[in-house]
Amino acid sequence: MRSGGRAPNALRTVQLTPHVNKYAEGSVQVEFGDTRVICLASVEEKVPPFLKGKGTGWVTAEYAMLPRATDQRTPREVTRGNPSGRTHEIQRLIGRSLRAVVDFTKLGERTIYLDCDVIQADGGTRTAAITGAFVALVLAARKLQAAGVVTDMPVKDYLAAVSVGTVNGTPLLDLDYNEDSKAEVDMNVVGTGDGRLVEVQGTAEQRPFSRENMNALLDLAMQGIRELITLQRQLLGLLE
Amino acid sequence: MRSGGRAPNALRTVQLTPHVNKYAEGSVQVEFGDTRVICLASVEEKVPPFLKGKGTGWVTAEYAMLPRATDQRTPREVTRGNPSGRTHEIQRLIGRSLRAVVDFTKLGERTIYLDCDVIQADGGTRTAAITGAFVALVLAARKLQAAGVVTDMPVKDYLAAVSVGTVNGTPLLDLDYNEDSKAEVDMNVVGTGDGRLVEVQGTAEQRPFSRENMNALLDLAMQGIRELITLQRQLLGLLE
Amino acid sequence: MRSGGRAPNALRTVQLTPHVNKYAEGSVQVEFGDTRVICLASVEEKVPPFLKGKGTGWVTAEYAMLPRATDQRTPREVTRGNPSGRTHEIQRLIGRSLRAVVDFTKLGERTIYLDCDVIQADGGTRTAAITGAFVALVLAARKLQAAGVVTDMPVKDYLAAVSVGTVNGTPLLDLDYNEDSKAEVDMNVVGTGDGRLVEVQGTAEQRPFSRENMNALLDLAMQGIRELITLQRQLLGLLE
Amino acid sequence: MRSGGRAPNALRTVQLTPHVNKYAEGSVQVEFGDTRVICLASVEEKVPPFLKGKGTGWVTAEYAMLPRATDQRTPREVTRGNPSGRTHEIQRLIGRSLRAVVDFTKLGERTIYLDCDVIQADGGTRTAAITGAFVALVLAARKLQAAGVVTDMPVKDYLAAVSVGTVNGTPLLDLDYNEDSKAEVDMNVVGTGDGRLVEVQGTAEQRPFSRENMNALLDLAMQGIRELITLQRQLLGLLE
Amino acid sequence: MRSGGRAPNALRTVQLTPHVNKYAEGSVQVEFGDTRVICLASVEEKVPPFLKGKGTGWVTAEYAMLPRATDQRTPREVTRGNPSGRTHEIQRLIGRSLRAVVDFTKLGERTIYLDCDVIQADGGTRTAAITGAFVALVLAARKLQAAGVVTDMPVKDYLAAVSVGTVNGTPLLDLDYNEDSKAEVDMNVVGTGDGRLVEVQGTAEQRPFSRENMNALLDLAMQGIRELITLQRQLLGLLE
Amino acid sequence: MRSGGRAPNALRTVQLTPHVNKYAEGSVQVEFGDTRVICLASVEEKVPPFLKGKGTGWVTAEYAMLPRATDQRTPREVTRGNPSGRTHEIQRLIGRSLRAVVDFTKLGERTIYLDCDVIQADGGTRTAAITGAFVALVLAARKLQAAGVVTDMPVKDYLAAVSVGTVNGTPLLDLDYNEDSKAEVDMNVVGTGDGRLVEVQGTAEQRPFSRENMNALLDLAMQGIRELITLQRQLLGLLE
Repeated sequence: MRSGGRAPNALRTVQLTPHVNKYAEGSVQVEFGDTRVICLASVEEKVPPFLKGKGTGWVTAEYAMLPRATDQRTPREVTRGNPSGRTHEIQRLIGRSLRAVVDFTKLGERTIYLDCDVIQADGGTRTAAITGAFVALVLAARKLQAAGVVTDMPVKDYLAAVSVGTVNGTPLLDLDYNEDSKAEVDMNVVGTGDGRLVEVQGTAEQRPFSRENMNALLDLAMQGIRELITLQRQLLGLLE
Repeated sequence: MRSGGRAPNALRTVQLTPHVNKYAEGSVQVEFGDTRVICLASVEEKVPPFLKGKGTGWVTAEYAMLPRATDQRTPREVTRGNPSGRTHEIQRLIGRSLRAVVDFTKLGERTIYLDCDVIQADGGTRTAAITGAFVALVLAARKLQAAGVVTDMPVKDYLAAVSVGTVNGTPLLDLDYNEDSKAEVDMNVVGTGDGRLVEVQGTAEQRPFSRENMNALLDLAMQGIRELITLQRQLLGLLE
Repeated sequence: MRSGGRAPNALRTVQLTPHVNKYAEGSVQVEFGDTRVICLASVEEKVPPFLKGKGTGWVTAEYAMLPRATDQRTPREVTRGNPSGRTHEIQRLIGRSLRAVVDFTKLGERTIYLDCDVIQADGGTRTAAITGAFVALVLAARKLQAAGVVTDMPVKDYLAAVSVGTVNGTPLLDLDYNEDSKAEVDMNVVGTGDGRLVEVQGTAEQRPFSRENMNALLDLAMQGIRELITLQRQLLGLLE
Repeated sequence: MRSGGRAPNALRTVQLTPHVNKYAEGSVQVEFGDTRVICLASVEEKVPPFLKGKGTGWVTAEYAMLPRATDQRTPREVTRGNPSGRTHEIQRLIGRSLRAVVDFTKLGERTIYLDCDVIQADGGTRTAAITGAFVALVLAARKLQAAGVVTDMPVKDYLAAVSVGTVNGTPLLDLDYNEDSKAEVDMNVVGTGDGRLVEVQGTAEQRPFSRENMNALLDLAMQGIRELITLQRQLLGLLE
Repeated sequence: MRSGGRAPNALRTVQLTPHVNKYAEGSVQVEFGDTRVICLASVEEKVPPFLKGKGTGWVTAEYAMLPRATDQRTPREVTRGNPSGRTHEIQRLIGRSLRAVVDFTKLGERTIYLDCDVIQADGGTRTAAITGAFVALVLAARKLQAAGVVTDMPVKDYLAAVSVGTVNGTPLLDLDYNEDSKAEVDMNVVGTGDGRLVEVQGTAEQRPFSRENMNALLDLAMQGIRELITLQRQLLGLLE
Repeated sequence: MRSGGRAPNALRTVQLTPHVNKYAEGSVQVEFGDTRVICLASVEEKVPPFLKGKGTGWVTAEYAMLPRATDQRTPREVTRGNPSGRTHEIQRLIGRSLRAVVDFTKLGERTIYLDCDVIQADGGTRTAAITGAFVALVLAARKLQAAGVVTDMPVKDYLAAVSVGTVNGTPLLDLDYNEDSKAEVDMNVVGTGDGRLVEVQGTAEQRPFSRENMNALLDLAMQGIRELITLQRQLLGLLE
């Protein structure tokens, strides 16, 4: 039995609260159950060296957790001097996923930073971060459109992410921390509004998994992504 | 004229929202106007090496700002590899201030970490952090009392902090960012429930200041601290 | 047309040269075409703190490239002071993959380090590293068995990895650098001797991909893994 | 009884030995009793990025202690990789204090570095450093004047600093290390030749302090600063 | 008796295998017995800041060991964040030695990086690295000549290096690790094709040594260098 | 003509001023002309891990320069986060040299740190540091003897160091900075009271040097070392 009597294929309660920061060009607080992430989009009028003078833009992400976002306090990464491997992996994943739905020519020669700071963690922080960062990105793009800096919406399609996993042989959607720590297989999936895939990262946590198990998990993830995108659409409407 | 028609000796709207985190032993979100800081108290059952085996405890603080807490995005300190001088200075101030009202024998051989993370900054983040961290500290102490881990309340007196400064020759209470950036003199004051002082840090930003000016600022600060402690008391009641 | 007239579903020439180092408990040089990686297994009679006293062992991996393993010289990571995000991601993948086929109770309370150093890179360095590290791991385990330190073979099943990708709409097996840089979708797959999966990491490099495309790539990868394991088996025989 | 029979309001023997380095544009060794600091002023013909092209200059300070400046050897900060919080705090204080008496337009677009290296520490190193750095700064400014690089003396007023503190309820001037370690309140004050204040940093070391105590300490500090400036004036004469 | 019955004045078997890397402008694997170093020369069309615009070039070296190049696994230097003192010392020695035989005007405004990576270490890694790096340097220079980028051979004379030492009172040439760890005196000597010296670094490991002992070691080293240069000449022929 | 009319084989004026620090177990300021180094010996009652429990001691050295010890201000190494290659090389040399004359069994299980801080640099800082550190070491050893902590003098013989070099074809003793920067060959030599050698580090700065040149430089260095040891002996007397 899942916490709160949730069905195996049910998402946790998802909340998207926009405009939570008065400075950022786009901002949203995303909640997947008790997982809570502030996603802020900041526009800077410059690009990384490898894009200078090409007329196209860039999107990059940074991810961090407050020390007590977790059950046990985790020391700040600045104390050890550099981001952990886990942090690197997650922020690379967020940036790569969002770039998959951006038309950089339409964005023009500027960078959008997506800062995803986990205020409270209960499993699925990276997928909540991607789902929230997408909203912040669209809000920032609209601000650029409203200011006449950008003509056409540079975001091409909706994008959301969800975790799935096998616990005691049962495929589950949107694992909380407790489920995640017992999962035999753990998979993070990023997908788009037109039903395609952007990232699939499946990992055998306890034992190798079969192709059939993988397919069941992917089915579940794609259903969850459709539901998340429905929620995003209620907030953002048409991308234009 | 101050923003929102505020009088020179008026605080901004101050909010203390407790229990904003499900893991921390004590938690509060503190707002001084648009300045918003999450203060979390975490108890760890160990002490720094210099206190080991002495039966007394420790309180320490860490401070950070989300990258887009500020008008312009500030790169994360983990990117440059270590906390800035400003961060060091502020977190040392917070820790030192709170230790001034703790009875470490009553706390016993354990450490309370106070993590102050600035979600949005509009001046006075360090004084808001001290004011909020005090609340988180008391909440954590009460949790230790409730669990029977600690017998007597280890916090001896109320504690709050406020900034004051001289702008265009006028002493002002609780400066916002815009005022702070124009101040000739800038002072942070930490005081206790019995009207005494814990820290006074006054700095000539543009020109040296007279002893009279200093006295006027201190008067203003002590009034502000009394008001802040009244708010804390409404939330926390007697320290016992 | 692929380089050397290779068929879309053909591996490059794969070589596994064992015993390339006189100190390491297990050593192999693995080549996938012009990609050349030295994989060394080192046994240390201690475990990470979280395993101390539990009687079970650990396997971990480190990955690096010589500065001129690549077409343009890449500065050493020690110069910038810490491993890049890419390095973190790869060495975490290698370690996690190998741990999936190890019985840590049979290994006993000791750690096997797998150092994968890329001497020359032409695409697929992480999958070559996993395929080679598996061989080094088995050689080290056999040395422990021969010395009577370990009784039963702690490696439970064969393991190999390969990259697949879609280039100009065509699914290709084992991409070289030139193909990889043009791929629309890029996927790294780690699988076992019994035909199951350990890791699937698929990424849309240029545009989101369909479920069908994903299935075609997985088919190709699983075929490649079978062939790689056949080569490993010729060298290592039965795992017992 | 204070060491050497010193009165509560007496400074230790203060010595200012100029021209202790053959390369620096300004140099002085300052001694407050057994506290000994070498203060060197170095002129560089460039300014920090935020001042480039504005025609005005900058003054900045760095502070360090030799490892055996203290009773117990302190490891070098380069060994741990970055300056400690204490070092950051002190060098920020020194730089800020000196900038309060500099006319940057008269200095022109150049930077003066003030390096304060503590050769031997016996309390009050930061206040000795400020007092000595002021002398080095004026000597460097005179060298610039003599060379015709700068027309008018860019230093507007004298500046000195002293520590005060309450020990066993008695306010004391210029604490040595032994007194400092027992002080209930510790205050560092920086003041100018015209009797105004530049920095006041008061800290409750053991218990909160009253406004009256603060006033008594400030009186004592302002007297000490007057005496220190008298000594500086004997060495430097009129600032013109 | 030396390992393998080697005479006191005999080198170990020395092998120079060129062209071991498909990207580097010059590459060689050098072996002194079981010591094995990959030396790669990389040409970059820029120079350090202090040479910019002067029309002359630069040669610099980097040195590293694979973790299991040694009998016991040595943690990677990137893990501790910076190169060790030993690494600094060796790479400075390699760069300085090679610069002694380069005509930088003939090289033109470009830098040649010499990366020396020790694959397996059995004593004498720095002298093997210098001997091999010389070959890689000449191969790179010839590639520049062949491409018409450089007109005249910028390498002026042959260069090789060897270690000598006193073990049980007997001067030995080309110490392996076992001999090196027992040596009373240890000396590394770098010399040229015309019989002159570039570096002499002699160190008393266990007790101070006499001038006579030093002379005997230098004689032995100069003989070894002549033999090494004979081997280099067989591979490279005339420097023109 | 050398500065001050000095003969080619003449040392600069050398001064050894003992007891310059009130905390260190041994302290001396050493001057070779305008080169000025403070050498402090600190005793700590512990040893590095590899010596724990063996009953023998250790001697180690650290070296640094004040930023304005040099003609142009050099940024502090703590700013870049770690000691430079030059610093590593020098402090390793100082420590190794001094260890060559210490009987670690007589010292007992404790460490002597030798901190050599260059206050002003005019060539030969490392040789002045070794010469001064030797004096500080003996003073500290005598303090340990006087306190009854150590029975027999653990320093076995005198030790001093000097630089020599060839300038315009002439061998010169004890080069100042100006001579050093023009030297064709540069050699640092460390020797003992009984006329033996501890370190010889000769480097071709501009062109390779002959064996004859090397011999002439060594003769000159050994003469200089004898004279330096005479000065040390006048201060310290018999080592007993």
